[in-house]
Amino acid sequence: MTQLPTSTEAPAPNVRVETVLENAARASADWMSTTPSFRATVLRLIADRLDERADQLVAVAGEETHLTEQRLRNELIRTTFQLRFFADVIIEGSYLDARVDHGDPQWGMGPRPDIRRVHEPIGPVLVFSASNFPFAFSVAGGDTASALAAGCPVIVKAHSGHPRLSLETGLVVTQAIRDAGAADGIFAVITGTESGRIALLDGRIKAGSFTGSIPGGRALFDLATSRPDPIPFYGELGSVNPTFVTRSAAAERGDEVLAEFVASFTLGAGQFCTKPGVLFVPVESGLVDRLAATSLPAAAPLLNDRIQSGYVATLADLLQHADVEALILDDGAQKDPPTPTLARTSIHQVLADPEHLITEVFGPTALVVEYDDERQLLDVARILDGQLTATIHGNDDDVIAPELIRLLAVKAGRVLWNQWSTGVSVTHAQQHGGPYPATTASSSTSVGSAAIYRFVRPVAYQGFPDHLLPAALQNDNPMGIPRRVEGRWQPK
Amino acid sequence: MTQLPTSTEAPAPNVRVETVLENAARASADWMSTTPSFRATVLRLIADRLDERADQLVAVAGEETHLTEQRLRNELIRTTFQLRFFADVIIEGSYLDARVDHGDPQWGMGPRPDIRRVHEPIGPVLVFSASNFPFAFSVAGGDTASALAAGCPVIVKAHSGHPRLSLETGLVVTQAIRDAGAADGIFAVITGTESGRIALLDGRIKAGSFTGSIPGGRALFDLATSRPDPIPFYGELGSVNPTFVTRSAAAERGDEVLAEFVASFTLGAGQFCTKPGVLFVPVESGLVDRLAATSLPAAAPLLNDRIQSGYVATLADLLQHADVEALILDDGAQKDPPTPTLARTSIHQVLADPEHLITEVFGPTALVVEYDDERQLLDVARILDGQLTATIHGNDDDVIAPELIRLLAVKAGRVLWNQWSTGVSVTHAQQHGGPYPATTASSSTSVGSAAIYRFVRPVAYQGFPDHLLPAALQNDNPMGIPRRVEGRWQPK
Repeated sequence: MTQLPTSTEAPAPNVRVETVLENAARASADWMSTTPSFRATVLRLIADRLDERADQLVAVAGEETHLTEQRLRNELIRTTFQLRFFADVIIEGSYLDARVDHGDPQWGMGPRPDIRRVHEPIGPVLVFSASNFPFAFSVAGGDTASALAAGCPVIVKAHSGHPRLSLETGLVVTQAIRDAGAADGIFAVITGTESGRIALLDGRIKAGSFTGSIPGGRALFDLATSRPDPIPFYGELGSVNPTFVTRSAAAERGDEVLAEFVASFTLGAGQFCTKPGVLFVPVESGLVDRLAATSLPAAAPLLNDRIQSGYVATLADLLQHADVEALILDDGAQKDPPTPTLARTSIHQVLADPEHLITEVFGPTALVVEYDDERQLLDVARILDGQLTATIHGNDDDVIAPELIRLLAVKAGRVLWNQWSTGVSVTHAQQHGGPYPATTASSSTSVGSAAIYRFVRPVAYQGFPDHLLPAALQNDNPMGIPRRVEGRWQPK
Repeated sequence: MTQLPTSTEAPAPNVRVETVLENAARASADWMSTTPSFRATVLRLIADRLDERADQLVAVAGEETHLTEQRLRNELIRTTFQLRFFADVIIEGSYLDARVDHGDPQWGMGPRPDIRRVHEPIGPVLVFSASNFPFAFSVAGGDTASALAAGCPVIVKAHSGHPRLSLETGLVVTQAIRDAGAADGIFAVITGTESGRIALLDGRIKAGSFTGSIPGGRALFDLATSRPDPIPFYGELGSVNPTFVTRSAAAERGDEVLAEFVASFTLGAGQFCTKPGVLFVPVESGLVDRLAATSLPAAAPLLNDRIQSGYVATLADLLQHADVEALILDDGAQKDPPTPTLARTSIHQVLADPEHLITEVFGPTALVVEYDDERQLLDVARILDGQLTATIHGNDDDVIAPELIRLLAVKAGRVLWNQWSTGVSVTHAQQHGGPYPATTASSSTSVGSAAIYRFVRPVAYQGFPDHLLPAALQNDNPMGIPRRVEGRWQPK
C-alpha cells in the first residue's frame, strides 16, 4: 500500500495514521541498523530525484505559496544541498561522538571497567513542516534529512499551506527510498491537524520537530511533554531578531545600513523567522528621517490567506499602540497583497513596554527605534526574550561592543556583526535556535550539521567482547571515524 | 550575608529564595566569563576542602542516612574525584564543541559567511539532590560539579533526608568558593519543597536537574515545562535494570551469577537506581531453586523513614500480586530494618502484566523470572519501558545475543555484558540516562564528562572581527583546545 494519501485531507485520520505509525515502528529496527554509507546513498538519491523534478516542483510551489520562482529555485538548491550535506556528515562520523574508555584498574575513583559510548537513533520522528519554506523546512527539508541521516524513520505532517507540493515531494521521496532499496516504512506524509495530534501523542513516536508560530509550537510542545512518556520536542517558534546600529556605524555608513535593512526586512515579503524586526538607531544620526524618505519595495503576496489575515491583524495592533508612529505607511499596507510598512518609536517606550513593542510581525513590517545613549542598548539586551539572532552594526573599536555582544549571546542563538540575519547558511558551525520562545530547546539547532544531534541518544556498552559491539566502538575502528579514546579526540 | 540558612527549614522561603535567585542572576555574567582554568581552580579547591573535612562529613552523613562508613567514604572519594574530573574536562576543552567555518564563496548552497560556534553556559541551574547519594548526587555532587564547570551558578535544593550534611557541605563549598576568589552568588543551598517549587518556576533559573523517584521527578518536569518560558529539566527518575542470564551462562556458571546477583541487589540495602530489580533465568537450570537455598545478607536500615515506609508498601504490593510467589521471605522483611526479600514468577506472567511485575522496588528486594525459551527474552526486551541499564550474562557465541543487545540498546542508556549494573564509574564514555521513565531527557547523562552538555547551549558568531570573538573561536586558538574547522576535528 502507498505511504501517501490520495487526497490532501485523509477521510479517516486515525486509520491512516495508525498504519503509518505501525510501518514506521516496524521499519525502525532495520533502518537504525543500516550503515551510514547506505543511508548516505538514500539521501543522495532523494536529492538527485528532487533536482530532476525541480521545474515541476517549483511550479507547484509557486502556485501554492506565491513565492517567486527564483526564491523557490534557490530554496530547492538549499534543500538538496542539505540532503547531501547530511550524507557527508554521517560518512565522516564524528556525529556519533564515539567514546572508548578502556578498563583501568588505577582509575582515580576506583577500578574502571571497559565502557564505550555511541550515539544511536532515537526512533521514529514526527516532523511538522513550515509554511514559509515549502522545500527547506518541509517534506524533504532539514528535519527530515537530519532524522533520516541519523537512522530514524520520519513521518512528516504536511503544512496545509502547500498540500499539492507536499504530496508531490512526498511521492518523489518515497520512490527514491524504494529505488535505493530501503523500507517503505521509514518515510510517510500525513495531513491534517488531527492526524498530527494523534501521531504526536503516540508512543511509537520518539521525538518531534516543528517550525512555525509561537502559539502553534507551544501547543505541540505541551502535548509532547504531557505524554505518559514525554519526548523531546524541537520547536522553532518565533523571533524578532533585534538589530543594533552603533553611533559610529550610523555616522560612517548609515545610508548603506538603511538600504541593507530595507532589503532584509522585506526579503520574501518579510516572511522569514530571521527577519530583522526591530532596528535601533541613534537619534542624532537623523537616520529615521532619512528612512522616512526611502522608497520601499512593491507589494508582494503573502504565503496564504491565513498568513495575510494574521499579518494585517498584528500590524494593526502595532500601529494602534499609543507609542508607535507610522514612518512609512500607505493605503496598501493592510490590503492583499500588502505594501511594506515601517513604524517608529523611541527606546524609552521600548523599555517601558517591551512585550508589545519587541514583538514579531510576520510579514513586511519593521519597527525603527531611536536611542539617545548607547548604554540604553545594553538595557534593551538585558530585557530581551530569547531570539534566533541578534545583530550589531558597529565599528571594531566601539566601546559598547564587547558588553553588547556578551549580553546578546545570552539571548540569541546567533549573533551577527555587520551582516544581516536573513539568510541562514547550512554549515557545521551554524546555530539556528535560541532560548524560548525562539525555540523550545535552546541547546538544539534546526540548521547545520549539529541538527542531527536532535535525533540521537547516547548508549554505553560495558564489558562487551569486541564482536558484539557496534562497529563504531570496535577496537580496530572499522568505520574509520574520529573517536574519543580515554577522553581525547583521535582523528580517524 | 550568608548563602545558607541557619535552620534546615527557612521560615520564609519566598524571601530567602528571592535573595538566592537574585544573587545567582547577578553572579551569572561574571562566572560565565571566567576562564576554564579559574573555574578548575575553584572546583579543585572545593574538592580539597571536602577531602580535608571527610571525617566530620562522613560522620554526619552516617547519622542521617544509615549508610555504612565505608560506603560513605567511597562516595566522598567519588564526589571529590568528580569535581577534579570536571576541572580536567573544561581545561581539555572539547566540551565547548568549538567550530570554525571560514567564509567560502564556493560553498555548495551559495556563498558562506564566516560562522563560528561554541558552547556557552545556559545560566543559573537548580539542582534537586537525591536521598540515596548524600555526597555524589547531592550538594557538591555531579550536577553541581558539571554546572559550575560549565560556567553556571548553582542553587541546590537540599534533600530533606540529610539536612545537616547538606548544610555542612554547603558551608564547605561556600567557603572554598570565597577563598578561591569567586563570587558568593554562584552557589547556594535552599531547603523545603516550596522553596524548590518557587525557584523552579522563576525566570532566572535556566535549567533544572533532579535525581529521585518517578512521581517526584515527573511533578518537577511538569512544572519546568509549564513555565511561560519552559526550561530543560534533566530528571533521573527510576529504573528496574533487567538482567538476563542466557542458557549457556546459566549452565556454565549459574552459581557464580547468583552469588553476584545477591551481592548486587542487596548492595547499599538495594537503594541504588541501578539495582538489578528483575533477573531472568532459564527454568531448566534449576537456578531459582538453588537461589531459594541461598542465605541473603542481614537486615540493614534504609535511608530514612519515608524510604522505609515506601519500601514496605511497594514490597507488599508485589507480594500480593496473584502471579508472584515469595522465594526468600522472612519475618523481618517488612520490619525496620528490613531483611532482604526475593520473589519469583514466570516469564508468561511478566509478559501478561509487565506494568506490575517489571516495576521498581526501592530497597532490598528483587524478582526472579523463569523462562522456557530464550526467544521470550526478546519479547520482554520489546515491551520494556526505558531503563538506566540492562544487563546480559551470556557467552560470546550465544545465538540470542546480537538481537537481545540490539533491543536492549533501544530501551536502556547502558547495556552491560557479564558485569553488574550497580557501580557507575565516572568516565568519558559513561552514560547514566535512558528513555523515560529512566530520565526525562534521554539524550542526556547525569554521570561522566558528557553530563556537562546539560548546562551549555550553542551560540554562533557570524562575521566578527577576531578580537571581538570568544577566545575559543579566535583564529590563533589561544585556549589551545580541539576544534572542528570546516567540520573536521583538529586536535589542539
